[in-house]
Amino acid sequence: MSNKLVKNAVGRMVPVEINGEPVIPFKGVNKHRPSGRKYAPPISCSADYPADGNKVVPSLKEALKNCGLKDGMTISTHHHLRNGDLVNNTIFDIAHEEGVKDLVWYPSASFPCNEPLIKYLEDGTINRIEGSMNGPLGKFCSQGKMKGTAVLRSHGGRYQAVQDGEVKIDIAVIAAPTADPFGNANALSGPSACGVLGYALADYQYADKVIIITDNLIEFPCMPMQIEGNYVDYVVVVDKIGIPEKIISGSTQITKSPDRLIIADLTTKFCVEAGLLQNRCCFQSGAGGTSLAISNNFHQILKENNWKARFAFGGSTKYMVEMLEDGTLDYILDAQAFDLEAVKSIKENKNHHEVSIFHSYDYNSKGNYTTMMDIMILGATEIDVNFNGNVVTHSDGYIQHGVGGWQNCLNAKCTIIPVPLFRNRMPIIKDEVTTLCGPGELIDVVVTERGIAINPLRKDLIEKLKNSKLPIKTIEELKAEADAICGIPEKPKFSDEVVGVVKWIDGTVIDSLYRVIE
Amino acid sequence: MSNKLVKNAVGRMVPVEINGEPVIPFKGVNKHRPSGRKYAPPISCSADYPADGNKVVPSLKEALKNCGLKDGMTISTHHHLRNGDLVNNTIFDIAHEEGVKDLVWYPSASFPCNEPLIKYLEDGTINRIEGSMNGPLGKFCSQGKMKGTAVLRSHGGRYQAVQDGEVKIDIAVIAAPTADPFGNANALSGPSACGVLGYALADYQYADKVIIITDNLIEFPCMPMQIEGNYVDYVVVVDKIGIPEKIISGSTQITKSPDRLIIADLTTKFCVEAGLLQNRCCFQSGAGGTSLAISNNFHQILKENNWKARFAFGGSTKYMVEMLEDGTLDYILDAQAFDLEAVKSIKENKNHHEVSIFHSYDYNSKGNYTTMMDIMILGATEIDVNFNGNVVTHSDGYIQHGVGGWQNCLNAKCTIIPVPLFRNRMPIIKDEVTTLCGPGELIDVVVTERGIAINPLRKDLIEKLKNSKLPIKTIEELKAEADAICGIPEKPKFSDEVVGVVKWIDGTVIDSLYRVIE
Repeated sequence: MSNKLVKNAVGRMVPVEINGEPVIPFKGVNKHRPSGRKYAPPISCSADYPADGNKVVPSLKEALKNCGLKDGMTISTHHHLRNGDLVNNTIFDIAHEEGVKDLVWYPSASFPCNEPLIKYLEDGTINRIEGSMNGPLGKFCSQGKMKGTAVLRSHGGRYQAVQDGEVKIDIAVIAAPTADPFGNANALSGPSACGVLGYALADYQYADKVIIITDNLIEFPCMPMQIEGNYVDYVVVVDKIGIPEKIISGSTQITKSPDRLIIADLTTKFCVEAGLLQNRCCFQSGAGGTSLAISNNFHQILKENNWKARFAFGGSTKYMVEMLEDGTLDYILDAQAFDLEAVKSIKENKNHHEVSIFHSYDYNSKGNYTTMMDIMILGATEIDVNFNGNVVTHSDGYIQHGVGGWQNCLNAKCTIIPVPLFRNRMPIIKDEVTTLCGPGELIDVVVTERGIAINPLRKDLIEKLKNSKLPIKTIEELKAEADAICGIPEKPKFSDEVVGVVKWIDGTVIDSLYRVIE
Repeated sequence: MSNKLVKNAVGRMVPVEINGEPVIPFKGVNKHRPSGRKYAPPISCSADYPADGNKVVPSLKEALKNCGLKDGMTISTHHHLRNGDLVNNTIFDIAHEEGVKDLVWYPSASFPCNEPLIKYLEDGTINRIEGSMNGPLGKFCSQGKMKGTAVLRSHGGRYQAVQDGEVKIDIAVIAAPTADPFGNANALSGPSACGVLGYALADYQYADKVIIITDNLIEFPCMPMQIEGNYVDYVVVVDKIGIPEKIISGSTQITKSPDRLIIADLTTKFCVEAGLLQNRCCFQSGAGGTSLAISNNFHQILKENNWKARFAFGGSTKYMVEMLEDGTLDYILDAQAFDLEAVKSIKENKNHHEVSIFHSYDYNSKGNYTTMMDIMILGATEIDVNFNGNVVTHSDGYIQHGVGGWQNCLNAKCTIIPVPLFRNRMPIIKDEVTTLCGPGELIDVVVTERGIAINPLRKDLIEKLKNSKLPIKTIEELKAEADAICGIPEKPKFSDEVVGVVKWIDGTVIDSLYRVIE
């Protein structure tokens, strides 16, 4: 790739070309406008598909060969089976067997279970991953060992990139907990039930070829259809697509850490005093222990006041389901179910609805749901004194996480980042984030166990809280407290070799990821 | 338009250019293959839409002006409100007031309530209708009074034409019984509840601009969303979008005519003897009186045998709902609800699912549902001795009906046309149909009150019925019986002026409609 870097609107040096394609440097929040038209997949003809609706072929290998698997193709997958996924690695086992090279893997997220793919990154079967990389895959990339350049996108950015033809998916392989021979599929039943399949929408709508792989084939019609068979080319039946106990996220328990509980408590009080938590409000929080503690607090306060929240956006958990069931919440709108209670609820509760990433997060759409959220609770690996946020790298410089929905969610009416002041004696608040994933102007509040910092741009919130007894501090004060305890840690050493980039929700490049010098 | 006509694969003379665009003459069943890519609408940007999700504007006029309404545009609407629709005419009232000319109206169907549009066809506000025309509109067109050339398409062909960019919708105006300010909408509730909105899918997915018009605005989110607000530009609230008693179809009563009951009885017996009606079968029949009598017979036979039908494809009626409720039917898949019982069922019964025209009928898709249907019951205005069918014109030559789903349904495993031998002393079986809408090779059986004709191509059915006591005759025998009673009627007189064409499900032109000489 070209080594030419330019400075973008947040002062970060970014390439103008990635993997041989020109890219646009970040221009500022809401500054870039798309041009042109959406990606247009080839027109199919029903006369070329089985009249009896039976698209089943004997194996994934046969399906991939029928799809014309060849060097350089882009293969997409979803992550609804999380760390219990038994499908995604097998695609590349087959590609390897067939001697196919230089594939691009375009997952909606990767998990530790995907570590075996490192051998295919090493031997050239896979050129690069465009998607989240955590743990070993992230380290591999940060070490400069990946042949192509990584492209990290938010969930919404992933949809946008496909919709707008920035990423052309040759073959989408969609693991489906239940499917029929025509390719209609859902995640409500079957041994690997995971609730919803909302991350796979762009994949099946826009991919040239679509393969459904299931361990629970039922008679047509598989209803409701979360995947529409009219977009599907082949159906493959295997013994097992997932390991149920690993499909369910391990993180959906309320934190027991006293510090985290303080953070949750301060966040809750802030939301109440700022008038954000109120009747008919809408909120989103994650499935981490602190977020769940906050949701749980919200639940109690809504109940005590006889308030109802209008909707909450999933990842859904049993805590959210409890709110729906006791009437504290009108609707759950859900793109991923984190636990079995959530899976059961989406199957049975008529006010628990699947929505896709397109609905919730696509920036290049006629509006999306994030801007309507009153309260948005998000995490971060680092925040800097300008409120910029990082979720991708740790302070040691290695890629550790995907962007997820984080960037998309920053468009909420009030974005709050509850974080500990330090983790493993490493301060979270920096002079400058290692990787800039979200511009500070979109992050409104940082809540730590030792105080709350409100972004100076949010004069309205500062005014509302001016007589509060809550520990409102400047972000510099919070940083100084952490630094006094931990000392200022050494910065990681980077070469000038760009191993990856982080895209903004509009498809522009917001920051570069560099090779770590070990 | 060019007057050049060529003979197509069924021997009909058709133009090679319609309304200034080249078209492809019909090549034969499953002979034409599409090339190129689907239509790609312009990319939008959420930053250009209200952050609070409120897309409501004060009036339809303002919405249309915001959409840039101008001469020559194509405006699409759906027909779910049937003859009770209060929206569609008002679009053209506004266009007329604004002095806009040469519009193309692209409805999924028109109804007698649209007769007032004749004045706009006369004064040049509307150039032409591309869609069904019955009664006064059909007569107007057959008299050669429409400025542009009519293009009649099946429901599936309408979807295909939009999907493939053959028809570019500038503005879709979607009447919605319930909607929220973001544009999410459904037809389950509200004073004009009509059950489903499956005919509007192509419209909102592919139109450049989309307007939702509702008389029941609710708080976001309107769930389930049959229309996805992420595709919607503006929302308009009016007092009334429909007249409830006219939204419900008037035709959903079982026939009381002794002749029609004989036809229903023969059809049922045929299906049993041919082994078509059996456990796990799938069937579709219309909402006409004879079709309902047949469905009712099917219901009794399934119950008596302890059989279950796997699915029935709507238009749904109370008769179908009864089957679903007593367990004779696993699923109703529904694109339009014909009566209040059906509307209620789709709202409340988890085995009654909305599907769209894309799912059921789109020929340029990776398969569709019609080819999976075991039994397809359809009507016709005329059938000829080669089993060709007509549904558009009557034997007087005037356009009287739209194609509806009729052409699409011909792809079923067994297509049966139960028709009376004559209507108003006009024989139904002709030497040659006035307008050829469906090639005879796809029509398997014609059932009349005086006998059943099996298409000679269906040797399997002839073999199965060879020892039957049912009155199996040749189609020529049936024709001779009718002609003996009625005499051979005079043929209508046509000029050589093409006033419209009928497209086949693959977008090619199967027949021409000529000006009637009165």
